[in-house]
This record gives sequence, structure tokens and C-alpha cells, in this order.
Amino acid sequence: MSYYILDKTNIVEYLNSIKNVKDYFGTDSLDIDEIGDGNLNFVFIIKSQIDGSKALILKQAVPYLRCVGEEFPLNRERMTYEIRALQSYCEQTPKHTPIIYDANEEMSAVVMQFLSEHIIMRKGMINEVIYPKFADHISSFLASNLFNTSSLCLDSTTKRELIDKFNSNTELCKLTEDFVFTFAFMPHDTNDEYAKEHELANKLFNDMEFKKEVLSLKYKFMTQNDALIHGDLHTGSIMLNKEETFVIDPEFAYVGPYGFDIGALIGNLTMSYISHIALKSDKDYQEWVFQTIEEILVKFEEKFLELWKEQKESALLTNNFIEDEYLQEFKQEFMVQILKDSVGYAGCKMARRMFGIAGVSDIREIEDKDIKDNAIKMTLDIAKEFVKRNKNIKNINEVMNIIKDKTT
Amino acid sequence: MSYYILDKTNIVEYLNSIKNVKDYFGTDSLDIDEIGDGNLNFVFIIKSQIDGSKALILKQAVPYLRCVGEEFPLNRERMTYEIRALQSYCEQTPKHTPIIYDANEEMSAVVMQFLSEHIIMRKGMINEVIYPKFADHISSFLASNLFNTSSLCLDSTTKRELIDKFNSNTELCKLTEDFVFTFAFMPHDTNDEYAKEHELANKLFNDMEFKKEVLSLKYKFMTQNDALIHGDLHTGSIMLNKEETFVIDPEFAYVGPYGFDIGALIGNLTMSYISHIALKSDKDYQEWVFQTIEEILVKFEEKFLELWKEQKESALLTNNFIEDEYLQEFKQEFMVQILKDSVGYAGCKMARRMFGIAGVSDIREIEDKDIKDNAIKMTLDIAKEFVKRNKNIKNINEVMNIIKDKTT
Repeated sequence: MSYYILDKTNIVEYLNSIKNVKDYFGTDSLDIDEIGDGNLNFVFIIKSQIDGSKALILKQAVPYLRCVGEEFPLNRERMTYEIRALQSYCEQTPKHTPIIYDANEEMSAVVMQFLSEHIIMRKGMINEVIYPKFADHISSFLASNLFNTSSLCLDSTTKRELIDKFNSNTELCKLTEDFVFTFAFMPHDTNDEYAKEHELANKLFNDMEFKKEVLSLKYKFMTQNDALIHGDLHTGSIMLNKEETFVIDPEFAYVGPYGFDIGALIGNLTMSYISHIALKSDKDYQEWVFQTIEEILVKFEEKFLELWKEQKESALLTNNFIEDEYLQEFKQEFMVQILKDSVGYAGCKMARRMFGIAGVSDIREIEDKDIKDNAIKMTLDIAKEFVKRNKNIKNINEVMNIIKDKTT
Repeated sequence: MSYYILDKTNIVEYLNSIKNVKDYFGTDSLDIDEIGDGNLNFVFIIKSQIDGSKALILKQAVPYLRCVGEEFPLNRERMTYEIRALQSYCEQTPKHTPIIYDANEEMSAVVMQFLSEHIIMRKGMINEVIYPKFADHISSFLASNLFNTSSLCLDSTTKRELIDKFNSNTELCKLTEDFVFTFAFMPHDTNDEYAKEHELANKLFNDMEFKKEVLSLKYKFMTQNDALIHGDLHTGSIMLNKEETFVIDPEFAYVGPYGFDIGALIGNLTMSYISHIALKSDKDYQEWVFQTIEEILVKFEEKFLELWKEQKESALLTNNFIEDEYLQEFKQEFMVQILKDSVGYAGCKMARRMFGIAGVSDIREIEDKDIKDNAIKMTLDIAKEFVKRNKNIKNINEVMNIIKDKTT
């Protein structure tokens, strides 16, 4: 099948060609709505006219940036990597992955479960919704996906095949290299207007100790192939309610450092925490966010080690190579290294959201200028500590203390 | 062209189909000799019957291990990676790469310059030949090939394309994972007979601090894609004379950690040094080997930094991102990290040669048992220090002092 752009006139015919989708809707007539997903792609909701509870999502990449138009070309092969990552998630963490009804790399299109009872986490957190199971869910998601796609679990050949599948996600990796690690920390015309005269932007752009460490984290991002990472795991890539958590939009997926996803998540939760401190929101909510950050880090480590315990042989390990006492030490040091990297990446992710392209609404949409500036200041204080101190972090307490110290 | 195995009956016809080769020999009749290259492949010398100085080498991989036979299958695609690495070397360091007359991935065959006036370095060193230009040559080879294929030089897209070209060299990478990092450090039926009752083997196999650090180095070997490495750069992969140095046999090539090639080389030179200490060879020769190790490390760093100085933009660096003073600090720390890794890998490479498959003749062929055992002991003493202390190494002096301390 050669690629063509789907629209309301041809989408029903396309859907009818997919057996899984036909089985799902039966002979029902369908309603089609194009909703967009914000930036990159076209997204359609397909609903049964007979039974409104029957609905699926179709997402298709076009060879340009949807929100800008054809004058901003962006390779539609980004959907290839999204599809491959979703397929990997379906294997590793089906509970936290939308059901995939069809995935078609040639068409750069995927048909999947419509999450009608879930909202984007960032919106929920801005509205102070507590998600009591979130830390448990997302730590499972992280531990399973990162461990099971690493050289601690896979054999050498399978790991290389995995790298092969994602290595050419060049364009989106380059976006991260540019927008997460570079342009947001220097005067650049992609930065927010706000940055131009902001004193804190000026200070950030001139903090050379910070930028030296950013280079080190960027280099690791480009050269360390630990595991299949989502690549953009902020609270806008999570849909959830009090009972269920789903991770979506893994188009930035590639085989990179463990700490990048954990850092993205922790960084974004920390920015939510800061926004609630700055806005003097409900204390219990603040406390829940804080506890959630800690719980994710603790549970991630527990669950990652649990999976490792079950895995006797892998690309790295051969039975009877090393005594258990020393293997445990090795594992502990390994986990500390993941934590260090996570903290470093959390800092990059936070700092880049202040003045770079695509800020986080938790903070950018604060209307009161003083409150917003206070939130920016706290974010940068923590981000700088995270980045500059990442290599010396030894445990989760130290991380939580940095957040505490810089928000009081 | 589909693959077939070349032999004396069909090789002339094959050679006649290659324009470069025809241009080289003209209408001369050819003599063909099959010499083997020791282990993996078939190697033919092709000589003009008219002018004996005109000669080329043809090397072809067969789908099994040549020295064992068809019962030991080994993917002939290994030659694909050798060809690609040689082509990269031709670009980066033509002075240290045999001239390639033809490279044919389908035929798993390469036709190249016959190095008639050069010998394998290991043999030269066993015979106490001084190569005054070697340190200068090989440090250029290392600096150019490693720097120019790294994210410090290439742009993001080109780097990923490079990874693509070498990522599937799975079988040979797995050989390294198994034989350099694993089996040689535990009881295993591939180990030398000698290991079975040797007290030092027993001690090595039970040195858990050493093995814990080996795991860490193995993990880095599998997951760190710094630059295109040769993957097997010992003194048997170098052909030279007093004036010229050539690197050959890069079939293990893939995009891995900088330190692996440097470590392989330093480790093998250190074993040569140890053999001459143990054998009480000429002091001047000992001194030359020692100085050569130091000179390689010093000059590699100088030349790598020189290339970096000329390279303003790359996947890592954007103009005006960071002030020069901090960039220099970053570079210094970067070079120390390469040194640490090099020392760690040197240690692995040395230790694995003592009891694992394929020892080095410098030491294994010492006839006197006490002298040989003394050489093994010194090698393991240094190797263990290198491996256990690699993360704390700060400068080249410390490395040289370890060698000095453990050989007196």
C-alpha cells in the first residue's frame, strides 16, 4: 500500500480494509471527527453511530508539521518509530498502553483504543487531581520497558536488532539535541519572546558550569544505548484517571540512556509541584505531588531490581560469572548511575521549558507575573542543582532535599 | 554478483573482471598463492610473473572459520564490516591503510596492496626491532579515526548513518563479549589447557572485585557508541617497518567506546614489555617499549585535541554555546574519561590473554616455565590494577607508574 493522506472522504474506506477494525465496529455506520493532537499529526475520532461507547482513534503522520503546515516539512517516518515503540509497549506493559487495532508503517497510521475516560495528566495536575495509583503504574511502566529492552535482559543479537529498528529516528532525536540541550540555553530565535529581556534567562544563558554539564548529558544522550526510551515522557504524554494510566505519543522513541525518561517525568512533576507552591495551592495536593516524585524513584528502583533478579542470563551476564555478593554491589552502583543520569536529565528538561520553544502550561500560563517569575526562579534553581550536582548524587533523599530546599 | 568461493581455478577470471586490478597488472601473467591469514579467511597473494615487485593481496571470507573448517560456521558478512572499516580508514588515515584496489561486499572479498616490506608487529617486537616512528604513526591513526567518526566531529545524521553501517556486526561483537570479557575469567572449556591447574588462573577467576569491574567495562563496550573502533587492535593487526605503519584486519569494527582500541594497543604493548622484562632482554629495547606506550598516550591526546580545536560545529557543539574556558575544561575531563576507559580495557585485554583462547605469543611461547610464569604474574598484576583502578586514573603518569611498579 503506498502512502496517501487520510481525510473525511477516504477514511471510511481505509478503515473498512482493516479486519480488526471491522470486527470492532461490525456493520455500524461511523462518525469521523478530526481533532488534531496539538502539534505534529492528524488525529481522527471514529465513533459508531449506533453505539456511542464504541470509538477508536486513528492517528496519521503527514510529511510536515501539522500545526504549522506544509512549509515546515517533517519526515512522516516519525510514525514508524511511534508504531514500533507502541508495539514494544504492548508486549512489555499492555496495561499502560492503548490497545492497537492496526499499525501501518507505509501509511504512517495507527488505529487504537479511544481513551474517552482519561485526560492528559498535565491538565489533571493543573486542576489538582490526585492520581493515587499513578506512581505505582508509571514505575512499572518505566521498569518493565527500560529493563526488558536493555542488555541486562536481552541477548546481544536481539539488542542489536532493537537498535537497528530505532537508530534512524534521526529527525526527532535531532529535535531533542537542539531543543532540550542547546537552543533553550543560549540566545536563539526559537526561544520564547519572554526570554529576550528576562533577567533569569540571561543568567541561565551565562551559567557556564551548568552548560558544561549540559554538554556532558547531551553527549550521553547521543551515545549511550541502554534501552528503548520513550524520548518525550512528560505529563502531556500520559493519559490517566484514578484507576488507569496510559503512556502515549512515543514518536521520539530510540535506544538511549535509561535516565532520560525518568528524568523527563521527574522534571515535569517537579515543575507541577513548583507551580502549586508558587500558586499556594492546596497543601495536600502539593504534598501528594512531592510524595509521588519520591515514590516513583523508589518503586522504579525496586521493580527494576526485581526484574533483574529474575533474569539470570543476558548479553551482560553469564551464569556463575560472579559471586552474588559482588553482583549485588554491581547492581546497586548501576542503580545509582541511573539515578544520577535521571537527575541530570530532569534538570535539563526543566530548565529548557523556561525560555525555550514549547513551555509547560503549568508555569507559562500563570497569569500573575510575580507568581510566574517566582515559579521560573524555583524551577531554574532546582534545575541548576540537578544538572550541576548530578554526578555526585548518591541516593533519592538527596534529590528530594534539593526540591524541598529550593521551594521553601 | 552472487557469492562464490574463490580458488586457484577461478581467481584469475575474477581478477580480470576488476578494472583497477587490470590497470595495475596490465597484461602480465599472474602467479597465485594461497597463504591464509592464520584464522578466519582465505588470503591469496597475486604476483606478476613478469615483474615480481608487482603484487596484490586478495582476502575472502568464507561462511565458516577457515582454520577449523566448515563444521565451525561463521557468517561471511564479517568481511562486509572489514571492507566498510577499511574504506573509512582510507578516508581518515590513508597513510596507515593498505591501498584498496577493489572491495566487494557480495563476494566478501577485498583486493589490496601487498605489504611485502612490512611484518606483523608482534613478530618484530619479539625479535626486539625498534620502530622509531610507530608511536607517532599509531597515535595519528587513533586520533583521526576516533575523532572523525565521533559525535564531536560528525553531525547527528551522519553519526547515525555510521552506526547503521556497523550495528549488525553482531557475531564478531559477540565474540568479544564472550572471549574478552567473560569466558577467559571463569572456568570454561574454551580456555587454554594451561589454565586448568594454574594457581594464578584460579586466583584470577576468584577475584570478584576485578570481575565486578569487568562487568562494568563489558556493559560500556556493549552500549557506548563513541566512534568507529577497529575492535581488535593488538600488535598482530599492525604491519610495519621502520618507516611505515599499516593497520589491517578490522573485521571486528563497530561503533563502540574510544578506549577500546587504545586499551587493546596499550595492553598488548605492555605484554610485550613484560615479556622482555621477564626474558631479561636488552635494556634499551625494554626502555623503547615503555617510552612508546607513554608516547602513544601523550600524542593521542594532543592530536585528538588538535582535531577538536579545528572542529567548531558538530552533533555535540553549536557555535557560541559555551565560553572557551569552560569548553577547555570539558575537553580535559573528556580526555581523562577516555584515558580511564583505555586503562580498563587494556587490563581486560591483558588478563584475557593469559588463560583464555588465543594467547599472545610474546608470553605463551616463552619456553622456560618459571620465566613464563613470572611474565604471567606481572601481566595479571598490572591487568588487575588497570581494571580495578581505571575509574580513579587521573593522568598518564599514573598509568606508567603502575606498569613500572609491577615490573620491578
